Amino acid sequence: MTVANAERQVARQPRGDATRQSILEAAERVFADLGYAAARLEDVAQAVGIRRPSIVYYFPGKQQLYDQVEADIFASMHDFVLKRVEDASDPMARLLALLDAWLDFLVERPAAARIIQRLIADSAPRGDNPVRFSETALRDIEAVITMGVEVGAFRPVSAMHILNGVAGGALFYVCNGGQLGEERSYDPANPVELSAFRALLHKLAEAAVLHPGEKG
Amino acid sequence: MTVANAERQVARQPRGDATRQSILEAAERVFADLGYAAARLEDVAQAVGIRRPSIVYYFPGKQQLYDQVEADIFASMHDFVLKRVEDASDPMARLLALLDAWLDFLVERPAAARIIQRLIADSAPRGDNPVRFSETALRDIEAVITMGVEVGAFRPVSAMHILNGVAGGALFYVCNGGQLGEERSYDPANPVELSAFRALLHKLAEAAVLHPGEKG
Repeated sequence: MTVANAERQVARQPRGDATRQSILEAAERVFADLGYAAARLEDVAQAVGIRRPSIVYYFPGKQQLYDQVEADIFASMHDFVLKRVEDASDPMARLLALLDAWLDFLVERPAAARIIQRLIADSAPRGDNPVRFSETALRDIEAVITMGVEVGAFRPVSAMHILNGVAGGALFYVCNGGQLGEERSYDPANPVELSAFRALLHKLAEAAVLHPGEKG
Repeated sequence: MTVANAERQVARQPRGDATRQSILEAAERVFADLGYAAARLEDVAQAVGIRRPSIVYYFPGKQQLYDQVEADIFASMHDFVLKRVEDASDPMARLLALLDAWLDFLVERPAAARIIQRLIADSAPRGDNPVRFSETALRDIEAVITMGVEVGAFRPVSAMHILNGVAGGALFYVCNGGQLGEERSYDPANPVELSAFRALLHKLAEAAVLHPGEKG
């Protein structure tokens, strides 16, 4: 998505939009590393290799830059999910496709994972409306769970409990790779590690929604 | 734990230790609300109703105060877990007792939950050793999983995958109560909500570790 957007924008207005895109990508890493409060526009400028006033030309302040980063993360994640879920036929396949899409998206974009992880602890950047940009993700999982419950394929479960209890695991898996100390550190993108965690996630999803005695 | 510690310290050295305890409790809320980078000793002083120099008398700086808050959270959580787990006989009962203990601890101390949630995204406060204080929690779950695998009660699962995929759900459940927008907000301490989430957590734990076809 980001790449596709960047290409489209570059075709339209070469120089400026390429800079804008570089700013957004650097800002995602800086906000992930430092958090909203500690991040400064100077840090982003330095990461891009430009000067602070050049950022202000595109984004008037830190809040606007952060908003654009968060909006882009959730818009990209939503598009990524839609493509995967539309190919799945039955409710269980749709739920697994959603979880796989989130897991793959976060593994490929770990800075986005850490920004979402921060969002859950942090009310400051989104004080007025914490779901201003994440609403699409919440609706994606609600749609899949509600449909499964309505057709009787799933037990009557709360979509938010599935979000917290099952889907959230993908965030921890990505964010915790380097946070568990040297001897326990792992690379979330390592195929063997990822495949084992994906298998666990599928097992958890089935246990969470299927009627007793059924298997996906 | 905190209350018991406070009582013991008050008995020993009335005035000073009561102030120290009030500073720690206020600091836990301030660090949870603002994060390490944005929190200032002035914010903590204001929450306690004392002046900044009084804090510096007990804690020379923000890093030392934060360290003590994080150390206290994980020490309290570990003590809370030990009492629950030692009563459980077989491996599955021990795992459920551990998860219940973490869930109950975090529900009762939501500021601690948000500090742990931040820790997972944030490398700054613990840059040199991210598990300096959380090591006890990691060892608690490793002990339970390793024992279950060794006696053949559990499949050969990774303790860190169970941490990320199952135990992490308790953190999300507590932290997300007010972060999912007005229409989805819930009180993690509400007995009906908590009991439904606990039942899901147990189901996930069983699915994650038991051999196929078995039920805890």
